[in-house]
Amino acid sequence: MLTNEGCRERRTRLWERLPEEISWVLIGDQRHVQYFTNFRINPISFSADQKALVLMTRDGKVILLADNFGKRSATVPYFVDQEVITAWYTHKKSVTNRDDALCLALSEVEKIWGGETGLIEPEGLSEMTAAMVSENAAWQFAEDDSETPTTLGTIIRSLRRSKHADEVELLKTCMRAGEVGHRRAFEVIRPGISEFEIYLEVQRAAQEAAGVPCVVYGDFRANNATLHKAGGLPTHYRLQNEDLFILDYSVIIHGYRSDFTNTISVGAPSDKIVAQFEACRDALSAAAAILQPGAAGREIWKAASAVLESRGFGPLAHHAGHGLGLEHPEPPVLVSESDDVLIEGDVITLEPGCYIEGQGGMRFEHNYLINSTGSEQLSQHRIGLTL
Amino acid sequence: MLTNEGCRERRTRLWERLPEEISWVLIGDQRHVQYFTNFRINPISFSADQKALVLMTRDGKVILLADNFGKRSATVPYFVDQEVITAWYTHKKSVTNRDDALCLALSEVEKIWGGETGLIEPEGLSEMTAAMVSENAAWQFAEDDSETPTTLGTIIRSLRRSKHADEVELLKTCMRAGEVGHRRAFEVIRPGISEFEIYLEVQRAAQEAAGVPCVVYGDFRANNATLHKAGGLPTHYRLQNEDLFILDYSVIIHGYRSDFTNTISVGAPSDKIVAQFEACRDALSAAAAILQPGAAGREIWKAASAVLESRGFGPLAHHAGHGLGLEHPEPPVLVSESDDVLIEGDVITLEPGCYIEGQGGMRFEHNYLINSTGSEQLSQHRIGLTL
Repeated sequence: MLTNEGCRERRTRLWERLPEEISWVLIGDQRHVQYFTNFRINPISFSADQKALVLMTRDGKVILLADNFGKRSATVPYFVDQEVITAWYTHKKSVTNRDDALCLALSEVEKIWGGETGLIEPEGLSEMTAAMVSENAAWQFAEDDSETPTTLGTIIRSLRRSKHADEVELLKTCMRAGEVGHRRAFEVIRPGISEFEIYLEVQRAAQEAAGVPCVVYGDFRANNATLHKAGGLPTHYRLQNEDLFILDYSVIIHGYRSDFTNTISVGAPSDKIVAQFEACRDALSAAAAILQPGAAGREIWKAASAVLESRGFGPLAHHAGHGLGLEHPEPPVLVSESDDVLIEGDVITLEPGCYIEGQGGMRFEHNYLINSTGSEQLSQHRIGLTL
Repeated sequence: MLTNEGCRERRTRLWERLPEEISWVLIGDQRHVQYFTNFRINPISFSADQKALVLMTRDGKVILLADNFGKRSATVPYFVDQEVITAWYTHKKSVTNRDDALCLALSEVEKIWGGETGLIEPEGLSEMTAAMVSENAAWQFAEDDSETPTTLGTIIRSLRRSKHADEVELLKTCMRAGEVGHRRAFEVIRPGISEFEIYLEVQRAAQEAAGVPCVVYGDFRANNATLHKAGGLPTHYRLQNEDLFILDYSVIIHGYRSDFTNTISVGAPSDKIVAQFEACRDALSAAAAILQPGAAGREIWKAASAVLESRGFGPLAHHAGHGLGLEHPEPPVLVSESDDVLIEGDVITLEPGCYIEGQGGMRFEHNYLINSTGSEQLSQHRIGLTL
């Protein structure tokens, strides 16, 4: 989980980016509410689609605005100075439009936003809540070194690049759960099992490791000489000998997600498949070898792609990887024309793949933390077609 | 899944409620995007927290606005006339703030919203997208028979009360899955199993029945003479003899959710516990007996509560039930001071419970469709402390 200290650090970094005249901010993207307070409505709860807001002042005050049912759906501790919780549903009276509850909460702290100048997050805040504070707030501004206006949401997204210690810990928790699911896949994959049954096995193993209900999503698909590319959630297709099963999946714990892949061969792989595997594995290693602050996203893509080309498998057909955190994908993106450059604190994934018509497809993936001198491999699952 | 016909019917009902001068609407609440088009970003996907918009015109045109990764995360067919899909992430170039992609999509259909007068959904639309169309659109209006302004979101919520045939079918699909989870609970509940292990068993059984990955949430908690009330997601507590396990859970399939409860006794229940069960069971029956269009929510609550009182268990300590659909809870709410009155097409749940200090708590629940003459019980799981 995110820590009080981490939330404080992130708020400090935000205020450093904002013009002096801004004395409060109002945030509505649920990822960003969490980023600064650790408050999150658990998506595995009755309030999954609901929202909370956070109002923060330059002098350090942090106020959560939510309805009472949204508050009940937060399943971990969070860090705010004040809570304004609207009694939307009391088990006594009829309910009104639930969105009105947030406006009511906002009206209760008018003394904070009603006087001084603020900034709202226009991407995450509804028109209805934004309209309440619009006379006192801007929704875009120019940073000191720029003439192009930007938004609070864009600034927060840029801050999200460099992960804090608590975010890395949470990502590692996701990874430990992800690894257990990959181990389980080796145990259960055999001719006759369906993609959906594999999903259920992996989902259960990952959750057992996480110790909490969590969302498990990704690619759970088999491919082969006839269908050499397939992605997305599992179907009821039953695996056959010579299939390749790509397990590329994420475990989301409290909004953060791991993301790593292995491809398992159903039955002993042919020499051709092994050569394809070795090319992917070496492409992964080549890209991993140059991970460090300052490395260009496009060079990392080229490093992976060059290995595939040198083995006669053509250029890499998709990204070499991307950033990890609260969203998928998030910057930096490691693609052929990327303008992104790695920075210390990036948590990224590398996932070269190779898909050959008439033969089959595969992909292998590890997650890394970019540190001051290079990188640390965070995921520890087995990369291999067989055990 | 929702059907093309159902989506058309719902759009027709919406337009009947809107003033003649409104020629387009722009909707951003993801539940409502789905309600009218069946488009939904699967929450079990990498795009879980992202949004799509729908722009609909009075002359019947329906346009989906999304980014290419959001579109990829829709896992069932949907029904629109046109799609404006922004190439947010191409596997070639760096990405920008993903929220900008929706603004870009909106700008591409300016010829529709740029001339005539429209109405936006202020609850579900971000300030940033709303700002684009604000010169041509209102965000509240007065219905013919009212002087109080209302919003598009409020109108849609009121339409959602009466379920269409496709919505009832989808809710039944959720219920079939929910029933299988309840059966599984009877099989696995015994001294020594943890609440979390029960969750994993129920989750798996429900998903196997649904045939797709889906979110399973609810109360998975034991109670007893020492702790007579407990709710929420499972802990690692291991069940002991004489515990009562309340399984009150929902299966969400494509946004819609079932919601029904049983309470299982660990070991043979005492006479006192059986008497408590019989009171709850009879409270449920008494409330169910008066379900019909026109029945007042408060009378349904009273019917359940009166049975508990007559057995010496005091008034019902929470709601007698609530509406089911895309949200939890949704109207009608069946509480002591409810102003809600049942209408044909309501899908509701009844869930009287009784929690006795020094003894333990229990709750039992069924789901019902309100039809023209009364009600149809939709959930078919066993209500009982033991098999």
